[in-house]
Amino acid sequence: MKRIAVMTSGGDCPGMNAAIRSVVRTALSKGVEVFGIDQGYKGLIEGNMKKMDNRSVANIIQRGGTILRSARSMEFKTDAGQVKAVNNLAENCIEGLVVIGGDGSLTGAKILSERYGVKTVGIPGSIDNDLCCTDMSIGVDTALNTIVRAVDSINDTASSHDRTFLVEVMGRNCGYLALVSAIATGAEAVLIPEVKYDIEGIIGKIKERYEQGKTRSIIIIAEGVGSAADFGKVFGMIGGFDTRVTILGHLQRGGSPTVFDRILATRMGTAAVEALLDGKTEVMTALQKTKVELVPFKDIIGLKKPLDTKLLEIAEILSR
Amino acid sequence: MKRIAVMTSGGDCPGMNAAIRSVVRTALSKGVEVFGIDQGYKGLIEGNMKKMDNRSVANIIQRGGTILRSARSMEFKTDAGQVKAVNNLAENCIEGLVVIGGDGSLTGAKILSERYGVKTVGIPGSIDNDLCCTDMSIGVDTALNTIVRAVDSINDTASSHDRTFLVEVMGRNCGYLALVSAIATGAEAVLIPEVKYDIEGIIGKIKERYEQGKTRSIIIIAEGVGSAADFGKVFGMIGGFDTRVTILGHLQRGGSPTVFDRILATRMGTAAVEALLDGKTEVMTALQKTKVELVPFKDIIGLKKPLDTKLLEIAEILSR
Amino acid sequence: MKRIAVMTSGGDCPGMNAAIRSVVRTALSKGVEVFGIDQGYKGLIEGNMKKMDNRSVANIIQRGGTILRSARSMEFKTDAGQVKAVNNLAENCIEGLVVIGGDGSLTGAKILSERYGVKTVGIPGSIDNDLCCTDMSIGVDTALNTIVRAVDSINDTASSHDRTFLVEVMGRNCGYLALVSAIATGAEAVLIPEVKYDIEGIIGKIKERYEQGKTRSIIIIAEGVGSAADFGKVFGMIGGFDTRVTILGHLQRGGSPTVFDRILATRMGTAAVEALLDGKTEVMTALQKTKVELVPFKDIIGLKKPLDTKLLEIAEILSR
Amino acid sequence: MKRIAVMTSGGDCPGMNAAIRSVVRTALSKGVEVFGIDQGYKGLIEGNMKKMDNRSVANIIQRGGTILRSARSMEFKTDAGQVKAVNNLAENCIEGLVVIGGDGSLTGAKILSERYGVKTVGIPGSIDNDLCCTDMSIGVDTALNTIVRAVDSINDTASSHDRTFLVEVMGRNCGYLALVSAIATGAEAVLIPEVKYDIEGIIGKIKERYEQGKTRSIIIIAEGVGSAADFGKVFGMIGGFDTRVTILGHLQRGGSPTVFDRILATRMGTAAVEALLDGKTEVMTALQKTKVELVPFKDIIGLKKPLDTKLLEIAEILSR
Repeated sequence: MKRIAVMTSGGDCPGMNAAIRSVVRTALSKGVEVFGIDQGYKGLIEGNMKKMDNRSVANIIQRGGTILRSARSMEFKTDAGQVKAVNNLAENCIEGLVVIGGDGSLTGAKILSERYGVKTVGIPGSIDNDLCCTDMSIGVDTALNTIVRAVDSINDTASSHDRTFLVEVMGRNCGYLALVSAIATGAEAVLIPEVKYDIEGIIGKIKERYEQGKTRSIIIIAEGVGSAADFGKVFGMIGGFDTRVTILGHLQRGGSPTVFDRILATRMGTAAVEALLDGKTEVMTALQKTKVELVPFKDIIGLKKPLDTKLLEIAEILSR
Repeated sequence: MKRIAVMTSGGDCPGMNAAIRSVVRTALSKGVEVFGIDQGYKGLIEGNMKKMDNRSVANIIQRGGTILRSARSMEFKTDAGQVKAVNNLAENCIEGLVVIGGDGSLTGAKILSERYGVKTVGIPGSIDNDLCCTDMSIGVDTALNTIVRAVDSINDTASSHDRTFLVEVMGRNCGYLALVSAIATGAEAVLIPEVKYDIEGIIGKIKERYEQGKTRSIIIIAEGVGSAADFGKVFGMIGGFDTRVTILGHLQRGGSPTVFDRILATRMGTAAVEALLDGKTEVMTALQKTKVELVPFKDIIGLKKPLDTKLLEIAEILSR
Repeated sequence: MKRIAVMTSGGDCPGMNAAIRSVVRTALSKGVEVFGIDQGYKGLIEGNMKKMDNRSVANIIQRGGTILRSARSMEFKTDAGQVKAVNNLAENCIEGLVVIGGDGSLTGAKILSERYGVKTVGIPGSIDNDLCCTDMSIGVDTALNTIVRAVDSINDTASSHDRTFLVEVMGRNCGYLALVSAIATGAEAVLIPEVKYDIEGIIGKIKERYEQGKTRSIIIIAEGVGSAADFGKVFGMIGGFDTRVTILGHLQRGGSPTVFDRILATRMGTAAVEALLDGKTEVMTALQKTKVELVPFKDIIGLKKPLDTKLLEIAEILSR
Repeated sequence: MKRIAVMTSGGDCPGMNAAIRSVVRTALSKGVEVFGIDQGYKGLIEGNMKKMDNRSVANIIQRGGTILRSARSMEFKTDAGQVKAVNNLAENCIEGLVVIGGDGSLTGAKILSERYGVKTVGIPGSIDNDLCCTDMSIGVDTALNTIVRAVDSINDTASSHDRTFLVEVMGRNCGYLALVSAIATGAEAVLIPEVKYDIEGIIGKIKERYEQGKTRSIIIIAEGVGSAADFGKVFGMIGGFDTRVTILGHLQRGGSPTVFDRILATRMGTAAVEALLDGKTEVMTALQKTKVELVPFKDIIGLKKPLDTKLLEIAEILSR
């Protein structure tokens, strides 16, 4: 393999640049050329790509976002779009493709491999931590630290009695961010998609706290459960609490990546290049315990990552 | 004057602890005793106060919130409540009172002075920067930096085309936080209570940006104008943009105070004690240019701070 | 076991408070009383300890340092001191002891167990990450992120040609912090105690960079290798570079713990209590891959943790 | 005036990019073209400059350092160098020059004006805050906040008795950073170039603290007074304290600018362009109270900024 390409796709996350840098420098150190594709599948269809060297990725390891940018592409869902994409790879003599992104991004890679024989390796980038078979995806650790600093800050305020703070965090189908940040901040309650919520139970617990003289409560809500603004109204109306809502939104996607994310992205970038050179395809780099392993797309795409129920117990015991 | 008291009231803000520390240490250095009243007017009515020494305020200058806590007090609005408050001051031989807070807190102080002859001095603590006659209130600089770091973080993300981020910040009647943070982040638009908004104009401007190939826009909205969630729907439906909402909420009240807020709070604490010892009453410490001056309550309470229109022009020119 | 005690000892690190909180709340949830010992072995000898409840550990998970404080104790090295310590435990009916700290702290626990039959469990707290048998100690992740943010900040400056920045980080016998932060920041060189340094080689590499038009270089130095100030003089004199030195010092011990450290500390606190209740003694909680295991003191104390040589290779490839 | 140029020179500081952005966008909004000169006087001599548009300065307001880079230039000190510089301006039809930097940078601008008739306006960029006639220079507020966060972090650690932390900050001839950060952190002592130090007095004060049971002391030292490492040895040997040294170094020049620095830089950039269009030359934009004024170079260059002695008193009273 003489030339590969790398792209980022889907929602961006901190650490993508560190992964790009690692892919580029590892490939170059092995005598392989690297093209960077701008804006994911959209750029691939439009032939928007260029050769990268060591300097293309200098001074980016600490930057949020992705220098290769990301985009949606409706056109890639069509056969015509896919053919254009494959032709652009062929014209540029690109023999392997590294795709950094989430479930949708890997699905695109799978199509390229299955239908058109392109060699593809995925790197999990998704702050929700909803990708199967990998303990952590790139961006999760940074997002968690962003959330926790925000909740710490809200915790700082010396509030009036009976004030309840609701903080909405990312996580459509996956409560990982909400649950771990609840443990790490000592939040009084957490609502996640994996567990049926019990409004009456939470209200009871918070009332008890106020009766014990505690002056505030924090409830963390994964966006997949519902809108924090709506829950705020409910807790206000049923519980009689004075509620305040924070919605962190895309704040969670930004910021300079943590050390964990930089190192994980760096290791996965190296592993992805090595996998391609090894002839592997349709696999994703995955953190399993402390090792970076390769997992076939078929064990990941479209599947639901189970929740670590041990974390729920810890949240329960420690929030007293 | 042999003994004074200090309290924080209303919404808390970063820098209140620095002000308390300065009041206590300045008074002690002048041979005056200081009592700290817990939870503002509520604690004053309940007689919840205690003598403070140098160590009571050690290691608090860097902490958000207020060690004296804050609370609402409906009882203080009644004559009976006020009499209790005054009696508690008299019983403890407290001759002067420093109140740190916003418009409502100063109103309470004014009542104590006018009706009951208590000597009072106010220190402006309000992250909205809505208090008249002072260039800055304590907490504003910290809140601004918190907002700006959050918007920077959102700005980091390399988004899909036509994505519009709405960020709701504090400011019920006062657009200062929104306007200054819009300038400091280069936001594309800002909605503030002082200026009638023009949805069509903003949509036009943003569409133009997208046509020029820019990939995202940021709109900052002061909470007094309306809910960012509602505006998000409007921009989505009328402009056809893909919108994302962040509501910073109480995140803006928290965090360690900036150097500016620590120094301002320290200087105002010193000035407040000196004012009481000088026989002054019904005055607030105010930053006017670079000096801390004393301004009578009557020139502040209930009045609306005018907006610096020069800032609007700067925002317009620089957001291109 | 009806009553246990917890203490922190040696150099403090971020996450110690999270561990204390977890020990206290886990024990209470199992019906076991907990005493907190102030200032480590010194407080144990002086009988300086008190009963803790859920509220004693409220709102501390986010705080740097340790609420139980730490201290050196020469007296504990004597038989007389040890006897006093053991008597104080006995008088307070304390049946088990959790010690949070580094190698020296565990040595103290081992003495209490071996000579006096006290049940002891250790939790590794040491920002150097120099404790054997555990992948990570509490505080390491926070220290790494502090170092990396500092180096990022230095990297920001657009320096004159030939300027070389030397950053001294902690690590007396262990280059982990230096090596990982070098990878995570893309530093040009790193000096660690485990590897013989080659001044000429580094100077050659940096000169080459300058000839390629790069404007600055960063060298990270573990304190165990020598003083950054001295190395700065050497690089200046031999290489002819304009050098600038930063010594991070205790900055690395401070700050709010990261999510990783909070969760690790929380899990280890729970595991330590469960170990004591299970009758275990002379063991340390250890992170092995993703699990918290128990390891006998004898496999840890006084032994040297080997360096992961794979990290050295990564640093070499990626710093180009 | 149809075309101007802008450059940064000397030590860089946070906020330089915000100033560049403001110069470019203000000029363009008035129909004036702007060239950006790379690497200050060096680039000016080498003719290294290019036309800038609105997009050249997009997304830089939040970045530390300077996109135009900075450099030393020995050649500019010669007549030949200056003639080259002036010819390059003439060849590119550049009629006015904005120079962002410190005393040395303004001196260069003065030479261009006096000897060769180039119209020049300066913007004060210097984290030391050592430029006369302006209350604040760009970068000072950010540097102060960086220092204060670092000292807060050191303060976090729960140290053994008698431990003394020495923190060296920037300031060759000017103790402003050291003094203000000492006030903002409650440091026990501060050494600045403007005041003769009294080692015995400081040792006495710190001993007294330890006798009162306080567990640590922080001393902030401006680099102009001497090396913190050397002072550390002295305090250790004479006072018998266990000392720890932190040297912040270039960490203080980095980081994203605070809101204050962004707004100040933005206002000064606008004022500098307006001054050039107004026919002004050999003037610097200066913050005087809350206004940005123009001050002739002759009142600034080579002069020493006096210290605000009121700050010394505050430091003394509040560090008890």
